[in-house]
Amino acid sequence: MRAMNGKRHIARRMADIQPFHVMDILARARALEAEGRDIVHMEIGEPDFPTPQPIIEAGHRALAEGRTHYTPAVGLPELREAISRFYQERYGVHVAASRIVITPGASGALQLVLATLVNPGEQVLMADPGYPCNRHFVRLVEGEPSFISTNADTHYQLTAESLRARWTGRSTAALIASPANPTGTLVPARELRAMAEFVAEQGGNLIVDEIYHGLVYDAEAPTALSVSDDVFVINSFSKYFGMTGWRLGWIVAPEAYVRDLDKLAQNLFLAASTPSQYAALAAFEPETIAILEERRNAFKARRDFLLPELRRLGFDIPVTPEGAFYLYANSERFGRDSFTLCQRLLDEAGVAITPGLDFGRHRASAHVRFAYTTDVERLREAVGRIEQFLAKG
Amino acid sequence: MRAMNGKRHIARRMADIQPFHVMDILARARALEAEGRDIVHMEIGEPDFPTPQPIIEAGHRALAEGRTHYTPAVGLPELREAISRFYQERYGVHVAASRIVITPGASGALQLVLATLVNPGEQVLMADPGYPCNRHFVRLVEGEPSFISTNADTHYQLTAESLRARWTGRSTAALIASPANPTGTLVPARELRAMAEFVAEQGGNLIVDEIYHGLVYDAEAPTALSVSDDVFVINSFSKYFGMTGWRLGWIVAPEAYVRDLDKLAQNLFLAASTPSQYAALAAFEPETIAILEERRNAFKARRDFLLPELRRLGFDIPVTPEGAFYLYANSERFGRDSFTLCQRLLDEAGVAITPGLDFGRHRASAHVRFAYTTDVERLREAVGRIEQFLAKG
Repeated sequence: MRAMNGKRHIARRMADIQPFHVMDILARARALEAEGRDIVHMEIGEPDFPTPQPIIEAGHRALAEGRTHYTPAVGLPELREAISRFYQERYGVHVAASRIVITPGASGALQLVLATLVNPGEQVLMADPGYPCNRHFVRLVEGEPSFISTNADTHYQLTAESLRARWTGRSTAALIASPANPTGTLVPARELRAMAEFVAEQGGNLIVDEIYHGLVYDAEAPTALSVSDDVFVINSFSKYFGMTGWRLGWIVAPEAYVRDLDKLAQNLFLAASTPSQYAALAAFEPETIAILEERRNAFKARRDFLLPELRRLGFDIPVTPEGAFYLYANSERFGRDSFTLCQRLLDEAGVAITPGLDFGRHRASAHVRFAYTTDVERLREAVGRIEQFLAKG
Repeated sequence: MRAMNGKRHIARRMADIQPFHVMDILARARALEAEGRDIVHMEIGEPDFPTPQPIIEAGHRALAEGRTHYTPAVGLPELREAISRFYQERYGVHVAASRIVITPGASGALQLVLATLVNPGEQVLMADPGYPCNRHFVRLVEGEPSFISTNADTHYQLTAESLRARWTGRSTAALIASPANPTGTLVPARELRAMAEFVAEQGGNLIVDEIYHGLVYDAEAPTALSVSDDVFVINSFSKYFGMTGWRLGWIVAPEAYVRDLDKLAQNLFLAASTPSQYAALAAFEPETIAILEERRNAFKARRDFLLPELRRLGFDIPVTPEGAFYLYANSERFGRDSFTLCQRLLDEAGVAITPGLDFGRHRASAHVRFAYTTDVERLREAVGRIEQFLAKG
């Protein structure tokens, strides 16, 4: 019954769980830095900004007040209330606090939702390219990721039409992200509605990853909660709120599922970090939001700098990314294997980016991802280095 | 393929995931408190002590220094080194830092190890009674908990003999805990060795939960790492180190499994909380250990008060618990259904304890668990109230 691997006795699923290829790039970058090389980091999916000071101060208060015991599994009641108010204020959508489950990061949220919904052998439809961990959360519970290849014509997003074409008797859920990683594109409200309706008709569930909400640069992204109460929305304090290392996220679930999410959270996590939850109470304060909106502007300026520059250098970016902090670029003009391109760019130009390989299989080796998680000056430096590198051929 | 439950479409495993029954007791206790009743809480599996001040101060420093970004998935290198040194200092055992994986609590550690080892349909042998989440971690990945009923004669612990009797072609691992929850008993070193040898002969793995290490009152508990390098040891900063709400634990794994644990941790968690990891660096400082050892003495004093008092009242506690902060008592003399006894003790005497039901099926309704996570004065109050309650009949 066991896969014997040398002296190891390891579950079969581990053969399907891939490490992030970018970790190799990152390790190589760190090694070069240790040798004294200067590397521009555009591979990292984490804002370079520190956690906003009001949240840090709330963290200090939490520690000073001894907020170090467990909270309820679904989270601190005050934080669930604060998130509920945030939906009202930002989106004009009423979301009852009772539907909000606080989790250890969006990672915990995705795991909790998928483990609650997916039986062995059931399919979860998802876009290729997409966030690499999604398929692993499905695999963990012996479900089957069903990849739908997406291209620029649908902004690399699933659509109701593509769901209809690929939904089978074994499908149980569709998982979309808006804004998406690695493409930075959005799902329009009408398509969110059409997908929610289609999936509901099939007796399935729609899961919407909104962890890059707030980091959108042209118009506010619509939340799936404005089109349906019967979807699972995943969100996080990591990206917009600048709290990556605190490991805090949340689920908005249909009311009928909260009891099950609660009992699974009790067992899998006990609860999310208590100091993190108290600190996050300051995330919605006006002075914090003011800082976050400045950062949003900084990200927009970075995108508005980097996008035309990369296009000028010959990277094909057919869709203007509206959010997140990624540019997903076709790099075929510079070689057939984007992983090799990433390695050469790092070694020869000192610029670290992520190979398409990390986000799926569909045309993966024709693409790379640039993260603009460093300032415009460093982005300019990177563009100059890439230009020189490409000129050498 | 889906279990339809009203309008819900939910995975079958959720029918096997039980909430903690003690949550009902806790909710009822809170409701009584809201009405002005005084309740002695002996149901809570969490030390009443706050996080030691040196750890709190390290937490403040982490925040002041902006330690809020992601760490590597296996954890902060300095923390892995500190844990390695701790094994040397406390147990005289060499454990390479490279074998240590930092996790979001022991919950994350148990999940990571079991998901890495257990295929669908494979069995994990575990004691009944035992920690309730264990069976759910196995169920999550479609494995099968195989319960071995234990009694006072083996101190409620598995033995090499019981493993031999119950190991089948489908068995892949045995999971033991020392000190154990709910019984507080230890596994002697010779039995650890015998179990490690037996499981290795079968080509399986032994997983040893040592999260209550440090909270032992007669002699130091032996770590399984002193008998074998080929076991998985789970530990935590929650109990002895007083960091429950920080959600931080660790695995010591055989070297050959670390790469797999790393890639699964990348995908499931990204990493444990960064401020928590920096704070935990202070956990091994002499001034912290001095505080922790004082607390250990306080727990010992509580046990030494409570144990004879409960025996005097007629609770049957045949084995003297050597660790953790629990007394597992046969309550049959006071009725056949210990859940009802717990409810009545709460309502009529204002004492909250946990029904055996939460820890398995074997003679569960004949047992209750007392947690001495409150001070001797409150324990004395509880004993008085229980005595009065029992006198009423």
